[in-house]
Amino acid sequence: MTQSAAKWSPQVWIYDTTLRDGAQREGLALSIEDKLRIAHQLDRLGIPFIEGGWPGANPKDVQFFWQLKESPLSQAEVVAFCSTRRPGRQAADEPMLQPILAAGTRWVTLFGKSWDLHVTEGLQTTLPENLAMIEDTITFLRSQERRIIYDAEHWFDGYKHNANYALQTLGAAIAAGAEWLVLCDTNGGTLPHEITEIVQAVQTWLVKQPLVEGIVPKLGIHTHNDSGTAVANALAAVQEGAVMVQGTMNGYGERCGNANLCTLLPNLQLKLGRSCIQPAQLATLAETSRFVSEVVNLAPDDHAPFVGLSAFAHKGGIHVSAVERNPLTYEHIEPEQVGNRRRIVVSDQSGLSNIIAKARSFGIELDKKNPTSRQLLDRLKTLEHEGYQFEAAEASFELLMREALAQRPQFFELKGFQVNCDRMPDGDLWRSRSLATVKVEVNDQEILEAAEGNGPVSALDAALRKALLNFYPAIAQFHLTDYKVRILDGKTGTSAKTRVLLESSNGAQRWTTVGVSTNIIEASYQAVVEGLEYGLIMQEQPIEAVLASG
Amino acid sequence: MTQSAAKWSPQVWIYDTTLRDGAQREGLALSIEDKLRIAHQLDRLGIPFIEGGWPGANPKDVQFFWQLKESPLSQAEVVAFCSTRRPGRQAADEPMLQPILAAGTRWVTLFGKSWDLHVTEGLQTTLPENLAMIEDTITFLRSQERRIIYDAEHWFDGYKHNANYALQTLGAAIAAGAEWLVLCDTNGGTLPHEITEIVQAVQTWLVKQPLVEGIVPKLGIHTHNDSGTAVANALAAVQEGAVMVQGTMNGYGERCGNANLCTLLPNLQLKLGRSCIQPAQLATLAETSRFVSEVVNLAPDDHAPFVGLSAFAHKGGIHVSAVERNPLTYEHIEPEQVGNRRRIVVSDQSGLSNIIAKARSFGIELDKKNPTSRQLLDRLKTLEHEGYQFEAAEASFELLMREALAQRPQFFELKGFQVNCDRMPDGDLWRSRSLATVKVEVNDQEILEAAEGNGPVSALDAALRKALLNFYPAIAQFHLTDYKVRILDGKTGTSAKTRVLLESSNGAQRWTTVGVSTNIIEASYQAVVEGLEYGLIMQEQPIEAVLASG
Repeated sequence: MTQSAAKWSPQVWIYDTTLRDGAQREGLALSIEDKLRIAHQLDRLGIPFIEGGWPGANPKDVQFFWQLKESPLSQAEVVAFCSTRRPGRQAADEPMLQPILAAGTRWVTLFGKSWDLHVTEGLQTTLPENLAMIEDTITFLRSQERRIIYDAEHWFDGYKHNANYALQTLGAAIAAGAEWLVLCDTNGGTLPHEITEIVQAVQTWLVKQPLVEGIVPKLGIHTHNDSGTAVANALAAVQEGAVMVQGTMNGYGERCGNANLCTLLPNLQLKLGRSCIQPAQLATLAETSRFVSEVVNLAPDDHAPFVGLSAFAHKGGIHVSAVERNPLTYEHIEPEQVGNRRRIVVSDQSGLSNIIAKARSFGIELDKKNPTSRQLLDRLKTLEHEGYQFEAAEASFELLMREALAQRPQFFELKGFQVNCDRMPDGDLWRSRSLATVKVEVNDQEILEAAEGNGPVSALDAALRKALLNFYPAIAQFHLTDYKVRILDGKTGTSAKTRVLLESSNGAQRWTTVGVSTNIIEASYQAVVEGLEYGLIMQEQPIEAVLASG
Repeated sequence: MTQSAAKWSPQVWIYDTTLRDGAQREGLALSIEDKLRIAHQLDRLGIPFIEGGWPGANPKDVQFFWQLKESPLSQAEVVAFCSTRRPGRQAADEPMLQPILAAGTRWVTLFGKSWDLHVTEGLQTTLPENLAMIEDTITFLRSQERRIIYDAEHWFDGYKHNANYALQTLGAAIAAGAEWLVLCDTNGGTLPHEITEIVQAVQTWLVKQPLVEGIVPKLGIHTHNDSGTAVANALAAVQEGAVMVQGTMNGYGERCGNANLCTLLPNLQLKLGRSCIQPAQLATLAETSRFVSEVVNLAPDDHAPFVGLSAFAHKGGIHVSAVERNPLTYEHIEPEQVGNRRRIVVSDQSGLSNIIAKARSFGIELDKKNPTSRQLLDRLKTLEHEGYQFEAAEASFELLMREALAQRPQFFELKGFQVNCDRMPDGDLWRSRSLATVKVEVNDQEILEAAEGNGPVSALDAALRKALLNFYPAIAQFHLTDYKVRILDGKTGTSAKTRVLLESSNGAQRWTTVGVSTNIIEASYQAVVEGLEYGLIMQEQPIEAVLASG
């Protein structure tokens, strides 16, 4: 961290709730490992508050906070989320709050009811008891050295329904020493002009409240996208003085999602001029957005504002010449500011320039007039039509290029493989076994090897490595680090085409290969073989050397 | 059409440009037949203006207008779109305008340049010539009995850059008799507060303009979603007096898309109280949204506001009990108003009330105090911790419930399976084979069957169906319709856990089952078995009958 970065402080504090509210999205399930990876990525992006989950609500969230202590974040505050104590208890005796304290965070986000209807119908308690629940829970958590962000649930609906009571709930939070008051549009039904009006009213009320222990409570905003205006609602609140914005990466969240931080960050920073993160961090936004969608295994939205693949795509003709003369005429911001890039979608020639640009990124200069370039393009188009995708499988793409350039060494030749999986009763239990046999030819020698694994692909990988190890001892260092499967045309059922992406590592570097087939075993096999090949190329024929001679 | 409907007139006129601006979306291609089907569906929805395309820009659009004459719309005005004449010509001699007239529409939408930079750099002509182009083209089209909607391209950027010139372009359109002035945020970079300010300024200017032939020009708004605020921008303009809103179905459009009419219509009508279409027509919105996504062959966005599958889905435990008592507490509108419906989903974060609500949706009454309910919840949490997910696998969830209630019939018992995949050279070619063998017990009989497939899972499915067909002939109707694979903890490589979701169909109904294992074959096998089981339950023991006896 540079000295200036150390002194730097945001004007609007971003609070990410991807790991808690975002995980409520239907179809999204996060493992503890996923949560840790996302938290670290958000930390690198410069997000100051990261809500980790509700410890105690499920075993996963307890473990997440526990494991995070072993690999702590560098700058971000990780926050535990929980509700006020239950009616008719003391916060000090509320078992629900114990795991919150055990999570060991400096900050706790406590949510409480703002809407009288939710108090009487949802919690089935009295309006004064709800106020006591807010005040008592905050007081108790503060006595345990926690700093408090108070999420006023259903704030806007509550305010519209009974403004006086809603303000009393904020009053209870202030009285107990909450540092942040976050106004939540939990149902997502509020439109921007209502946000403006109500936040103004809260500000007017807030300045009249007596200070508690010298704390000047600050306002935050938490919006949902049920009316399609979550981003605009958050912006409206910021323009009325809110200085914390809660949202999620890619707008994940229950129903129609939360406010999308990938949209809000550039709007706040580049358009409203409110610093949230460092410009260099903002320039990693598109990458972070894709990273998160990869981890949660949801296809990224190509049409997402700022970070989508199509966000700065221009079609051919007048448009393109104009945008190249003066980008300002057709682009609202510079794509590089958010780590995205301009794409010119031109017919015919576009593929070739793509190939050339990609080749250049590997340090290989191709020529448009070179027939090899044209061949490579045709081969690539055929493969992409079959379902291959090389964007995330650069190792397979490099192998393809080397093949076209006659620079792909053949380390071994496959003579056949067989995989056998069975599941049989064994006394009262079941016994499962996956066995693979491979035959390869290396240096004119035929090698037959077999190995077991806990699935067909790991068995195949083990057998292949066993067969090659004597010839290529470097293989002992290789291992598989990630494995992803996508079904390309789901509608044809189990006969659908399968694309496998496989990440390998030699301890120092990582590389990804791809395989496609209607048979998942075969698709996996292709990716495993290319993974080994590529690892050997890096080991035995460093790319620079090959390219220098090329 | 009822009499009252005949008299009915909207307060805000919706102008759909799905067929023209929407079709600019990367990856969207419309045939003439597609365009006709969408136009008729929009007509039924009650959209008053439907932009059909730019006749002359491509042969498809010419034919569209031609074919539409053979099956005319019942109420909507179909509109032809075109640009002003080229510099240095007369509109009467502009060949580009001939196909516009040949399209034979009552209304023409003419777009012209508002931003001085686009005039000098894009068109490479002078500022006065651009004004002449606008005025001359409108005058000519009006002389041919056309009514004019004027789209002021790049309006907001132009106004910010040179307000005086931008207003002169509108002045030229008014002078020539345009009836509508539509302010376009072509690059999508404008935020709502700027829209408010600029539309206010235009209104103030507009009332001072002298009337031409008694025409009082009305304002419209056309927004793009590059800042994620297209909907909010359109609403802001309506609140400042715009009475036409241009947008597309599902927000399709270039880059990040156009303003989404499926979001705007309910916001305008249910929230701002501006009538656009009849309430009964609004109640077909979700259906229309899905229809359009079907026709253009793009997966519908499940998380789209108002019309998405998840827009009224409830997941969290507390939510569900409350929403059932009083929907207002967790829903911003009644889903039926837009033709959508409430859904209760079951997940990791569920409480007992979710399970109970879900059971109720299958017609099963559980009790909170019933130990079975508690057992079921525990079992569900354990399974979800192992990686199972039931949100999208309702059939597996029902089997789980039936098991807990001792209502799960056992159609067969698995005695073991074996799957064999091999790839061997066969002369110069490769031969791949997937063979599965299964042993099952049905009615005390052991059945051993084998089958081939083009992958291990389809072989397994085929063998199992073969083994059971004699006992359960209904199985002949079953087939697999979708297959999804997700690796749960990719970082452990090919030993990672795999979750398979499998959709089956009997021709009339569809159902989804789930399987989890480190072995993809086993995970798939679980899902295949449950898929068959569930199909048989539906066939042989209709749910109602079983429940009545339960």
